[in-house]
Amino acid sequence: MNQNELKSLVGKKSVEWIKDGMTVGLGTGSTVYYMVEELGRRVKDENLKITGVTTSIRTANQAKSLGIPLKSVDTVDHIDVTIDGADEISSDFQGIKGGGAALLYEKIVATNSDKVMWIVDESKMVDKLGRFPLPVEVIPYGSQKIFERFEKKGLNPAFRKDDKGGLLLTDSDNYIIDLHLGQIDNPHELAEYLIHQVGVVEHGLFLDMVDTVIVGRQNGLEVLEAK
Amino acid sequence: MNQNELKSLVGKKSVEWIKDGMTVGLGTGSTVYYMVEELGRRVKDENLKITGVTTSIRTANQAKSLGIPLKSVDTVDHIDVTIDGADEISSDFQGIKGGGAALLYEKIVATNSDKVMWIVDESKMVDKLGRFPLPVEVIPYGSQKIFERFEKKGLNPAFRKDDKGGLLLTDSDNYIIDLHLGQIDNPHELAEYLIHQVGVVEHGLFLDMVDTVIVGRQNGLEVLEAK
Repeated sequence: MNQNELKSLVGKKSVEWIKDGMTVGLGTGSTVYYMVEELGRRVKDENLKITGVTTSIRTANQAKSLGIPLKSVDTVDHIDVTIDGADEISSDFQGIKGGGAALLYEKIVATNSDKVMWIVDESKMVDKLGRFPLPVEVIPYGSQKIFERFEKKGLNPAFRKDDKGGLLLTDSDNYIIDLHLGQIDNPHELAEYLIHQVGVVEHGLFLDMVDTVIVGRQNGLEVLEAK
Repeated sequence: MNQNELKSLVGKKSVEWIKDGMTVGLGTGSTVYYMVEELGRRVKDENLKITGVTTSIRTANQAKSLGIPLKSVDTVDHIDVTIDGADEISSDFQGIKGGGAALLYEKIVATNSDKVMWIVDESKMVDKLGRFPLPVEVIPYGSQKIFERFEKKGLNPAFRKDDKGGLLLTDSDNYIIDLHLGQIDNPHELAEYLIHQVGVVEHGLFLDMVDTVIVGRQNGLEVLEAK
């Protein structure tokens, strides 16, 4: 199976966790895409009653086109489960997210969920985090100063560009600075540093947050319980 | 003297710290208004050469109208001194800012300044912080959930409204939640709690940040060195 087939397999599988009546956080990304497609199919074919809470304009548009009822995180009283992708998951279940630039809303929705499930193909499972560049969402005003601070600290920052070569804007009109770290030895320490920088809105380290990981492997699906 | 006369006195006085060639952070608020007016006068009458870095659209407009040259925080290599107001200053020089909803840019500029000066009338000097509601700037998506969390924690939150009764939007298009606390016994602990809430962009506690405070009192000006 190629990577897309693995993503499709995992995405579809995860929908089995969704029961009638649930409020479901819908992540963002290429694996989540298959999950949302399958969820739309069940809503249509099986008359599954669920409410979706999206994490990006992109997923919202997909869900709407499939007839999945949507609400804002602010108008649901709770979220039963959020199913999202991840860019890297370490052996102790810490994650990097934000490759799709939706980390802020993804983290807001995850934080407000009873249960968090990540769905990935096997290429995302790593020993230690850091080969994937760590996204940091920053307020545009002062972002050059933050960039310089990151540079001085040896964090190898790079502003993320959009398709046209300008600076990418998130759904909240902020910038993304990607930190090319290679390896993150202490994710908690790095997270503390980042969150204390004035102008940093959020970062892509999702620590102690996931409950279940479904991994699509060449030799089958693996379901890992993190908590 | 009434309060406005005290503000005017302090605002004008603070400009004495500004020397030719300096890059100066310009705060926001009713006391800063007088400082910027006096600075504009010196730029015009004395041909004072300075570069201003503003913290809000409001101050930027005032400075422009007075002919004060402006740059973004991102295009200056350093800021010599930032002069700003404060809503409350405790006896150990911790501050609450954000009554004018400009706390995010104010904190970004202060963080990038060699020296920070606050200018206030005597009504702002308090024993302990907290009688002034503490502003917290939050991402709109998920803000109701943060509000509920603040409520549960007994922080007496209230969304700030604009003149038309809608929710006030900051210069970064975020909301402000004001915490009506009465008294803050441990500002550092509260700041740590707030900064760790996903969706909180910044809060109005300015801790260990000010170097000099000028206080306008009925019996004269007082200059306090905090560091």
